[in-house]
Amino acid sequence: MADKEAVRRPGGRSARVRAAVHQAVVDLVTERGYGNFTMGDIAAQAGVADSSLYRRWGTLENLTTDVAITWLTTHSPIPDTGSLAGDLRGYAAGVARDINGPTGLAALRLVIALAGAGEAGAGARDQFITERRRQLQEMLDRAQARGEPAVEALDILDHILAPLYIRTLFGMGPVTADQAHKLADGLLARTEDAGRR
Amino acid sequence: MADKEAVRRPGGRSARVRAAVHQAVVDLVTERGYGNFTMGDIAAQAGVADSSLYRRWGTLENLTTDVAITWLTTHSPIPDTGSLAGDLRGYAAGVARDINGPTGLAALRLVIALAGAGEAGAGARDQFITERRRQLQEMLDRAQARGEPAVEALDILDHILAPLYIRTLFGMGPVTADQAHKLADGLLARTEDAGRR
Repeated sequence: MADKEAVRRPGGRSARVRAAVHQAVVDLVTERGYGNFTMGDIAAQAGVADSSLYRRWGTLENLTTDVAITWLTTHSPIPDTGSLAGDLRGYAAGVARDINGPTGLAALRLVIALAGAGEAGAGARDQFITERRRQLQEMLDRAQARGEPAVEALDILDHILAPLYIRTLFGMGPVTADQAHKLADGLLARTEDAGRR
Repeated sequence: MADKEAVRRPGGRSARVRAAVHQAVVDLVTERGYGNFTMGDIAAQAGVADSSLYRRWGTLENLTTDVAITWLTTHSPIPDTGSLAGDLRGYAAGVARDINGPTGLAALRLVIALAGAGEAGAGARDQFITERRRQLQEMLDRAQARGEPAVEALDILDHILAPLYIRTLFGMGPVTADQAHKLADGLLARTEDAGRR
């Protein structure tokens, strides 16, 4: 269905090539780890010419950066449930679900590999963090407008995302929606208590 | 001084070889990343014969596992200051200091790489987590014996270690002792509030 649509609309071929290339990168990162494949490997896996990869992305670093950013900013969308508790719980559970899959884990490993890989990597990491912070800030601003507690975006990174990410990266078993909900509830309780102190 | 001692005592040469090999692995992980060097590279860097590495460690995975576990369990020692707040603050600041250095970051990346690297890796990760939990549990048991709040070892992972690790892995700048202290204070406040609720 999605494929047919891509064929029909203008730019459909280009979009299909992009999707195939992104999938090839995700597969190679999952199978071999970042740093263990070349532009040629990606081209072969995606069934496109090497030259079209170089024309479009220039370098392997630019391409993997594009893939990691796209994946991480389009998955785990920010919910708008009408309450901060509902938004935080929904968001945390979505992140847990996404990083449990092999693709999510690969994307997370990729951002970490890129953060340690010089300037292009630092750019990718900054883009990802900036974009996620912007999305989360909108959610927090809506809550404040409703008179709910003022949670900080950085606290969401420290006390919801970091525990989910580290448990997953350390291979401590799949993180569950229940664990994610508890982290969200804990952050909210902590913010409310801090407000009272 | 330490070197002279190693020469004099029985097993001194063995201990020096071990130290040189461990340092070589740390250097190669820092420079090239895990997966991008061989037993031969380590032997060359450490100035020892390939055969002695194979005799002692068997495989590259066993060797890197030994290095990561040794580094992570001997650094960031658990303090015993007489108060839970002092212990948590001291421990958090020690972890922050250790992972700010290139060796600490390399060890952290190595544990993550190993966690995704099959059975030997899973063994390394389990050893590391089990040993750290045991050390932390002793600190928490001492606090409980003094009648202080019952913090869980897993909460230290989730709310002190995970934020420090993720900020570092994402390259968000060096984590400071002040940030580490705030995470420790936050966990303690949260545990006390939960006790009152």
